[in-house]
Amino acid sequence: MYKMLGMFVVVMSIILLIFLPHPIWSTTTPIDNILLVVAYLFGSLCSGLAGYLGMDVATDSNMRSAHSAQKGITRAFLIAFRGGAVTGLAVVGLALLGVSAIYFFTGDPNIIVGFSFGASAMALFAKAGGGIYTKTADIAADLVGKIEMDLPEDDPRNPAVIADNVGDNVGDCAGMGADLFDSYVASLMAVMLLGVILGGYLVELPLIFAGIGITSALIGIFLVNVKEGQDPGAVLNNGTYVTCILYLILTSIVTYLQGYNWRLWGASTVGLIVGVIIGMTTEYFTSTNKPPTQLTASSSLTGPAVTIITGFSYGLISVFPPLVGIGLGSWISYTLCEAIGPGYGVYGIGISAFGMLSVVAMIIAGDSFGPIGDNAKGIAEMSGFTEETINILDKLDAAGNTTKAITKGFAIGAAGLTVLSILAAYKEVAEVQLNQIITFDLMNPIVMVGVLIGIALPPIFSAILMLGVGKNAQRMIEEVRRQFKEIPGLREGKEGVVPDYAKCVDIATIGALHELMPATIIIITVTIMVGLIFGVYGLGGYLAGNIFSGLLFALLMSNAGGLWDNAKKYIEEGHHGGKHSEAHKAAVIADTVGDPFKDTAGPSLNTMVTVIGLVANIFLPLFLIYALFR
Amino acid sequence: MYKMLGMFVVVMSIILLIFLPHPIWSTTTPIDNILLVVAYLFGSLCSGLAGYLGMDVATDSNMRSAHSAQKGITRAFLIAFRGGAVTGLAVVGLALLGVSAIYFFTGDPNIIVGFSFGASAMALFAKAGGGIYTKTADIAADLVGKIEMDLPEDDPRNPAVIADNVGDNVGDCAGMGADLFDSYVASLMAVMLLGVILGGYLVELPLIFAGIGITSALIGIFLVNVKEGQDPGAVLNNGTYVTCILYLILTSIVTYLQGYNWRLWGASTVGLIVGVIIGMTTEYFTSTNKPPTQLTASSSLTGPAVTIITGFSYGLISVFPPLVGIGLGSWISYTLCEAIGPGYGVYGIGISAFGMLSVVAMIIAGDSFGPIGDNAKGIAEMSGFTEETINILDKLDAAGNTTKAITKGFAIGAAGLTVLSILAAYKEVAEVQLNQIITFDLMNPIVMVGVLIGIALPPIFSAILMLGVGKNAQRMIEEVRRQFKEIPGLREGKEGVVPDYAKCVDIATIGALHELMPATIIIITVTIMVGLIFGVYGLGGYLAGNIFSGLLFALLMSNAGGLWDNAKKYIEEGHHGGKHSEAHKAAVIADTVGDPFKDTAGPSLNTMVTVIGLVANIFLPLFLIYALFR
Repeated sequence: MYKMLGMFVVVMSIILLIFLPHPIWSTTTPIDNILLVVAYLFGSLCSGLAGYLGMDVATDSNMRSAHSAQKGITRAFLIAFRGGAVTGLAVVGLALLGVSAIYFFTGDPNIIVGFSFGASAMALFAKAGGGIYTKTADIAADLVGKIEMDLPEDDPRNPAVIADNVGDNVGDCAGMGADLFDSYVASLMAVMLLGVILGGYLVELPLIFAGIGITSALIGIFLVNVKEGQDPGAVLNNGTYVTCILYLILTSIVTYLQGYNWRLWGASTVGLIVGVIIGMTTEYFTSTNKPPTQLTASSSLTGPAVTIITGFSYGLISVFPPLVGIGLGSWISYTLCEAIGPGYGVYGIGISAFGMLSVVAMIIAGDSFGPIGDNAKGIAEMSGFTEETINILDKLDAAGNTTKAITKGFAIGAAGLTVLSILAAYKEVAEVQLNQIITFDLMNPIVMVGVLIGIALPPIFSAILMLGVGKNAQRMIEEVRRQFKEIPGLREGKEGVVPDYAKCVDIATIGALHELMPATIIIITVTIMVGLIFGVYGLGGYLAGNIFSGLLFALLMSNAGGLWDNAKKYIEEGHHGGKHSEAHKAAVIADTVGDPFKDTAGPSLNTMVTVIGLVANIFLPLFLIYALFR
Repeated sequence: MYKMLGMFVVVMSIILLIFLPHPIWSTTTPIDNILLVVAYLFGSLCSGLAGYLGMDVATDSNMRSAHSAQKGITRAFLIAFRGGAVTGLAVVGLALLGVSAIYFFTGDPNIIVGFSFGASAMALFAKAGGGIYTKTADIAADLVGKIEMDLPEDDPRNPAVIADNVGDNVGDCAGMGADLFDSYVASLMAVMLLGVILGGYLVELPLIFAGIGITSALIGIFLVNVKEGQDPGAVLNNGTYVTCILYLILTSIVTYLQGYNWRLWGASTVGLIVGVIIGMTTEYFTSTNKPPTQLTASSSLTGPAVTIITGFSYGLISVFPPLVGIGLGSWISYTLCEAIGPGYGVYGIGISAFGMLSVVAMIIAGDSFGPIGDNAKGIAEMSGFTEETINILDKLDAAGNTTKAITKGFAIGAAGLTVLSILAAYKEVAEVQLNQIITFDLMNPIVMVGVLIGIALPPIFSAILMLGVGKNAQRMIEEVRRQFKEIPGLREGKEGVVPDYAKCVDIATIGALHELMPATIIIITVTIMVGLIFGVYGLGGYLAGNIFSGLLFALLMSNAGGLWDNAKKYIEEGHHGGKHSEAHKAAVIADTVGDPFKDTAGPSLNTMVTVIGLVANIFLPLFLIYALFR
């Protein structure tokens, strides 16, 4: 796995070194090229570290939370929540540290693009690779273990069981950490790039707001505390609200003291509010208490096909509020700030995206809380803890599911605004370098070609990932079958006979990267090709097209997948015949369709769109010189 | 049903009369308002007529083709094909007649917008209403008849059986006729509008090319003839190619004789070539002989969820070639014609869309051939004709399936270019009326808000239609159950006892309109709201957004649906265990998911996008005066 990743990083570094920011043969300052490569490597490293820390803390907190639950909810909750908080703070801290360090040493925000690209490319591997990994192991463990061999869930005789458990952690904790790390860095970078063009305090402003965001989150995290009898879900949400309010108060004080323009503060506030609203609407479409999930559950009485169509339809409807929210958010913040002067409008969009992300440490804390609670429950069940303890952990688990839905909406919303500001940064930088006004006019057919190619790419990327899951699962299924056949005594559970867990973990890991690599190479190559053929204008349209269909499919797939999952859970709670009924079987099929939607393809799309935006920004100097049509 | 449709038409007429093209109180020439209403009503009538004729001829040709098959393939083929040809010529003839008549009497292409709007609104009812109708009857007939009562397919005791058979004709023949009628008229209208601005022969040019298109199709149709031992599919395709080549030769002669600019001829040629290419790639993704369908079929060995994911993934990939084709087509024709002078570029896009549609009579002939052959086979089987006769009709049926895939791609491609030229017409007309240059710059946040709202609408429209199928099917299921319970002797098939077929047809019809009406009102209202709030710029972005996600989902749903259907057929041919195997069951579930995709939602999206574009064009004068943000 490391070999493959390493090769990607090496090839990318060489390309950057030779061509960027200026072809090495045509520049007198090759130092810039070296700095860019260093920034790129540093970004990859930080992003990987953020993901690793998240996973490490999560696996540690699981167990401790399960044990403390024996002494009541207060301590168990605290351990689980603060475990998540460590990840959140680590992600934001690393991001801020990295960006500040580069800015401090080079004073050149363009080098930060390299850092951001490194972070996003690594996040893509974590998120999409983790997504393929998880589902590969999940499908293989279920199909051979549960169905063919009739073993119970998580049976240690099943060679795929460890891979399956590891996968849950990879997808849930490392994935979200790396994803928000990359959005955070990209958003920070975009605002700083836009700020450089405008000059003044606008370059530092996002760094200051970021600092306030961390402070607010820290205070918010320390205030979160659940007492006996309180609903942990409500406590978590209150923590988020407190953080947001703190952030608004502190930024307004700083704005007043430093004499910043209030319109910028306004834009940042708009972003934060939009983020919260998007989170809440996402919850509506996936919560078991709300009509969409319940109607999908009741439609499963008519069979799997109708369940799938109904859930898919609600998924289609669910894209509306977030898209409108992102649209209105960007419009309001643009209008607010454009009044300051020309060029401030797009800066306003950037600062609004960053406003949404400023409280991200708290958001990650709430999100990581979910899988920690879930795994703690699993550990308690396997260890035979008392009913009472398990009930406590059940409450944590349920609270985690709600916050998770909100986080997902939040992450997509933030990514949406972020990629819009990356697009804006791309345009502004191109304008400076070309020294002419650039408009991405939809009636300019070269822009339109770009858009039409751009909207086709996210679907293709999703498709390759989902097909990859199937292919990889097939490999692992064969390995599991082989082990049951060739290891004597394994099937019967003979004392001392253990399956070769490591082999399955290997297959899942290598296979995931194997399937992901072509998808990654395709999207990067197509982006460079579009830039080289259709130039700055075509590429601008292409980026916009990517954003449009990327958002559309990310929302559709995440929400439909979450909805099917919860419809199944709703039936398992005893509705429509409960477990083992025909309705339940139909819901299980729909949930299986939803798995790669919500765990593999959907959440990777954010990152994919960010990566493409960064590739466009980073290779821009080349396109300006060599493009076929300009 | 007529009452509801009538009410829609009356309300629409009153709105048009009062407000358009100028509010009646602020104009000195109310005659224009009256003309617009008359054109609107005339358009509705012609579109309805085209659909009705198609259905009528098809039902008549079924039987005659089945009978003649007893005397060999030549005559059976001719009857089926020429039945389709009648529909094709009627559609094109009516469209050309209507547009020419209005242009002749008023000399004002703006009034043609009213005609086109009438045609499209009616087409939407035919296509989407027909889609809901078909699937309602299909699901109800299958669920109660086959599964609950254990009756064979098409058993006369099943009260839903007539509705089911009628549905097949409505969806396949009337739908496609009305759909292409509306694209044809809209495309013709857009080019003429653009032509008026440029002046000279450019207004008449599309009418002349249309005449040549009909002539080429007529000759092509007469040349199509299948001899004993020939493959009817190849013959059909050859007929299409001959028509295309004839069209190119004849238009080049006319261009030479009349001294038209050759670049315009080039643009028209580009459109035609792009149409053929899109048709061929569509065939690749849905044909039983090609990898996507076969791999989906083999994935059904792992169960329904994997079948659905695999097919969906190939559907996602299949959007790429048509989108790139539409993009390149519009770009090349724009670049070709912009060299003539400013404003000619968008005219070039229009003429290229129309070039694609010029041979539409032949395309419809090939498309209608499919269901006629299919039904003829059904009739022959029910009437107990000889094996040999059925084999002949089987060949016709198979040939029909291939041409149908090509037609679908062609229809979507043509719709794509058409809506692009409607967008162009919208912009040009707004420029003339505002007397200023308009650009839909993606970095203008009001355009971006428009795009983001616009891309959300086609998914919502699809969702409402698909959920509507479910609700309507539920109503019909209850009626079928009631009849089996309350009509004595029906279940046992007692002599002389017949079910109340008419009641089921009523439920399907009224229910379809009942479900469709809110969707139609939503899309028209949202369009007007966006125009009134966000003005010309926001609405331009909104139209573009509609085009983007409309094309995306139309292609995805049509292709995935077709692919699942053919994967099922491939298994039924004996692969992977054949009929009644587990793989077959999985494929049937996937096919049921695909049914509303390909027959209800997918094909309605073209028409929906056209309707929205026309609403924007028709209400434009109001937005210019009253919009909140301009």
